[in-house]
Amino acid sequence: MQPTFHLLMKTKQAARSRRLLGAALMLVTCMLAQPLHAELLVHKQRFDMPKFTTQSGVTLPVSVGWEAYGTLNHDKSNVVLVTHYFSGTSHAAGKYAATDAQAGYWDAIIGPGKAIDTNKYFVISSDTLVNLNVKDPQVITTGPASINPKTGKPYGLDFPVVTITDFVEVQKALLDSLGIQKLHAVIGPSMGSFQALEWASRYPDKVERVAAVIGTGYMDAWTAVRLERWAYPIKADPNWQQGNYYNKPQQPKTGLAVALAYVTQDALHPSGFNQKYPDLTLDIGAHRDIRQSFTAWDQLLAAATTRSQLMDANSLLYLVRASQLWRAGMDEHWQASLRRIRAKTLILPAAGDGLLTPAMAAQTAAVIQASNPQVTQQSIAQPAAGSMGHLDGLLHIQDAAPAIQAWLEH
Amino acid sequence: MQPTFHLLMKTKQAARSRRLLGAALMLVTCMLAQPLHAELLVHKQRFDMPKFTTQSGVTLPVSVGWEAYGTLNHDKSNVVLVTHYFSGTSHAAGKYAATDAQAGYWDAIIGPGKAIDTNKYFVISSDTLVNLNVKDPQVITTGPASINPKTGKPYGLDFPVVTITDFVEVQKALLDSLGIQKLHAVIGPSMGSFQALEWASRYPDKVERVAAVIGTGYMDAWTAVRLERWAYPIKADPNWQQGNYYNKPQQPKTGLAVALAYVTQDALHPSGFNQKYPDLTLDIGAHRDIRQSFTAWDQLLAAATTRSQLMDANSLLYLVRASQLWRAGMDEHWQASLRRIRAKTLILPAAGDGLLTPAMAAQTAAVIQASNPQVTQQSIAQPAAGSMGHLDGLLHIQDAAPAIQAWLEH
Repeated sequence: MQPTFHLLMKTKQAARSRRLLGAALMLVTCMLAQPLHAELLVHKQRFDMPKFTTQSGVTLPVSVGWEAYGTLNHDKSNVVLVTHYFSGTSHAAGKYAATDAQAGYWDAIIGPGKAIDTNKYFVISSDTLVNLNVKDPQVITTGPASINPKTGKPYGLDFPVVTITDFVEVQKALLDSLGIQKLHAVIGPSMGSFQALEWASRYPDKVERVAAVIGTGYMDAWTAVRLERWAYPIKADPNWQQGNYYNKPQQPKTGLAVALAYVTQDALHPSGFNQKYPDLTLDIGAHRDIRQSFTAWDQLLAAATTRSQLMDANSLLYLVRASQLWRAGMDEHWQASLRRIRAKTLILPAAGDGLLTPAMAAQTAAVIQASNPQVTQQSIAQPAAGSMGHLDGLLHIQDAAPAIQAWLEH
Repeated sequence: MQPTFHLLMKTKQAARSRRLLGAALMLVTCMLAQPLHAELLVHKQRFDMPKFTTQSGVTLPVSVGWEAYGTLNHDKSNVVLVTHYFSGTSHAAGKYAATDAQAGYWDAIIGPGKAIDTNKYFVISSDTLVNLNVKDPQVITTGPASINPKTGKPYGLDFPVVTITDFVEVQKALLDSLGIQKLHAVIGPSMGSFQALEWASRYPDKVERVAAVIGTGYMDAWTAVRLERWAYPIKADPNWQQGNYYNKPQQPKTGLAVALAYVTQDALHPSGFNQKYPDLTLDIGAHRDIRQSFTAWDQLLAAATTRSQLMDANSLLYLVRASQLWRAGMDEHWQASLRRIRAKTLILPAAGDGLLTPAMAAQTAAVIQASNPQVTQQSIAQPAAGSMGHLDGLLHIQDAAPAIQAWLEH
């Protein structure tokens, strides 16, 4: 497979054109009083594996989407892999079109001149298997909504359980196909931190730097059981039909929306949440009739309903399972697996994170530190306006830009 | 109504018999190497109100159960009211029979010679309206499972929404019926703290001392929305039938058990939980098949299923709503309501409480303190074996016994 890299221009002519274009863009940018760097335009690419064997021993064809920012250097030594979170995609930075309402989720730290400087690094990110955003035209993934070649119908729950290790192995095959043998760094938030740590533990000689943002090297029983609540509303929705809802008129929309509302709240913190949502005491109807819902919940659910339009209910179940099963090395020897990490390690919890707590991050750091002197741990500070909890790892990642830059450069 | 008080013996003869019985019991107790005080035997009593008007303006007959420990003194000035938690009952201390497997939930601090000394105080506790344990033969309550006299059928969701204020008003009517006009103290854990604070705020001249254990004077939007998760599994259970399941073959047992599993986990803390429940990595089946559940959840659900045998699903919905609507004074002026408290106030959060957090307790204390110099705040210390979270307010209340005794005695 011959990949095409956006923004990768090999000839001197192209480089000059690029500088001129960059200068022109800079000028326009300054005139519009916008940030002093060009808008990063990206496009989705596709990686196909006709045969991928899961850790559980099932062989099947898989495809994932990927995108890249910056230029791969001659010896392919400037690669930064970014691994995405639970409800995320490979769209970590930039825009597909200048008119996009929003840039990728970590655009604050990925781009020309930013902490993860695309003038220096070739930053690459891929959609995971069982990605949640199945109906997003920019997402390419293989999961329960994909067609099972053996039956010609969607897999549904016959899709094998996949783990963080499987996500990593697909990424490795993608990088292999590009001739990339080493990672200057791998970094990801939340479920992305699981993948980053699994990379560094599984391939200690290939990973020079690893950063776990709002992350952990293991999932405890408490958190795994809490995550089961995200699955329950889907399983309890009669329209779910034991996962066989594809191509049927009834879809588990309510269950999926409720699940996503739970995900959203669990990723938040009371302080940020209470600023946004009204108190129940203002809901006169809820005082009078048990059947009446209340405004805060209605608003949270409405936002989740909108957000879930491009998502697939079964895929959420598979992501829950992958997250529940997460431990470095995917077995009970997770501490031994973490101790295999040779990479320069950065652990970045968010102070108000109630989902993957700072205590879990600290425990992870302590285990790695036992056999690795290059571990730095630092909190993403709680913003003055009130903690956003786990989401500070996305919304306020800019706070950690200096730490990320220092980790990446030295 | 003429109440009968167990352990209340007015004649000298009875007092002598009681001393002898006490000595004999003490001897037996010592021989059995058990605690050095007599077993407190209690019995349930019934309080009927033919006409109770809820805060929402609905008039209906209500009955609640109550029990008492110790002796009401001549001027009825030694009354300590104990208000119960969400899934609790009026059984705060003692046993109904010596053969009972367990004593009441706060038996560690209520009894002869204990922090709330029944040799000094007349301790009384009543079942709330919409009590969860409808099928417990020791519970008397009025709620959605009760017969609506207008239809001859259970109310179901036609039962009015009731609030913490309604719980307090029924208790006040019960105390009025006993000729009790003042409370030496009112104390309760969790939802019991809501009632205690509402008593002290609503009747500042009647309440001399108030203690809020693992409690708060207000419910924020964050917590109210989280509590909605306790209601969801019931509403999503097709056997719930919009609340009309009474006297039908299909009962919402699954929804109720899942709800109670959520309540249980939310009242715990990761440290205690992780000691008890196994990690997911040990569940081979869960790695292989998305349909397979995992042991930690199965165990939590099995315990909840057993515990829910005596409970009623609709009642849980009403208790969720009462908790969600809680704010002192039941409106947006909760801080003004709390500032009406004249009682000597004790605020006892549990350090590891993730349900009603120490931050909420501190905020409550701060508001009361603004107009009341007699506020003490102290944490129930995290036990060495690991925090049990919110439940430390029940399981480790003994830790706060000196603070409770000091608050009560001075």
